[in-house]
Amino acid sequence: MARWEPDARERFVAAALELFTDQGYDETTVAQIAERAGLTRSTFFRHFSDKREVLAAGQETLSRLFAEGIAGAPAGASPLTAVAAGLDNAASAMTPFNRALAPRLEAVIATSSELQERAAQKQVGMALAMSDALRARGVDIRVASTAAELGLLAFKEAFTEWIADGPEDESDLAVLLREALERLRSAVAQLG
Amino acid sequence: MARWEPDARERFVAAALELFTDQGYDETTVAQIAERAGLTRSTFFRHFSDKREVLAAGQETLSRLFAEGIAGAPAGASPLTAVAAGLDNAASAMTPFNRALAPRLEAVIATSSELQERAAQKQVGMALAMSDALRARGVDIRVASTAAELGLLAFKEAFTEWIADGPEDESDLAVLLREALERLRSAVAQLG
Repeated sequence: MARWEPDARERFVAAALELFTDQGYDETTVAQIAERAGLTRSTFFRHFSDKREVLAAGQETLSRLFAEGIAGAPAGASPLTAVAAGLDNAASAMTPFNRALAPRLEAVIATSSELQERAAQKQVGMALAMSDALRARGVDIRVASTAAELGLLAFKEAFTEWIADGPEDESDLAVLLREALERLRSAVAQLG
Repeated sequence: MARWEPDARERFVAAALELFTDQGYDETTVAQIAERAGLTRSTFFRHFSDKREVLAAGQETLSRLFAEGIAGAPAGASPLTAVAAGLDNAASAMTPFNRALAPRLEAVIATSSELQERAAQKQVGMALAMSDALRARGVDIRVASTAAELGLLAFKEAFTEWIADGPEDESDLAVLLREALERLRSAVAQLG
């Protein structure tokens, strides 16, 4: 790989989001994304199967990070404690780049029902990744599903807070995630 | 409306599912669906905006039934008891027609990533419909979101059981829903 390639992925994502925002998702081609990124089409296709994948890549990474964090939780950890470890692992991988681009990413997704449907399926996939990782620890399927849904709700709430705070703010995603999961734990006690 | 129109909707759904199964979703046109149903294209468009809507119509109906049932629960009902009322209301509207066609509907959706993404978004919509109906009762947003996710998990589990039992079986969807929600209530106590 050439010397500049380690950050090729981020450059493609930034270039794609600029173009999607400026001229629309449907009107943007992979060739244009590559040109804007100062890279080649063949490099693009080493990182993404198509332009839609540029938007979904973050959610797939999150699924993997959740699952790895859950798998790495201490043996005696409760299901929700394992989910907290999954959230923590995801938080540790989120960079200022993710935070800065997230509002634009959400704005692009909001312009297209196709992209919204895709995002919804990826959310289902994130819950499933957490649930599968919990089941691999021997957690009952219904407990795993419930804990996974709480993890996803916590992630969505904390991530929204984090990106709303803006990049200059000092808020820490890991702390926001822990607080969000704790609020949901309290909410569960009020289900009746 | 002509005399035969009250069941036009069901005839379009049945015809569409036959064609989607036999020749594929992409290859099927609205004209073919109308012909198979013995109705006209203009009648089709009085019921559905396009062929994709034929598959999504059931999920939109469910969202409405969940919300109405939740709204109609007794004033002092707990969030989960209100969700149970929403599930009960949906169960009361499910017919042998729904049960007979559901396996074929799921098989068609499984053939297309576009349809899977659409179905995922509709599931998000169902949870949102329940959550909004709970919030309209004054339930805290996180309690509402959590109760709605449990309601959706219960519905998916019970509905899968119901259609797996086959149309000749005596199992009652309302009973399966209550049992599924009760199992999830027990699961919540094991989250840790």
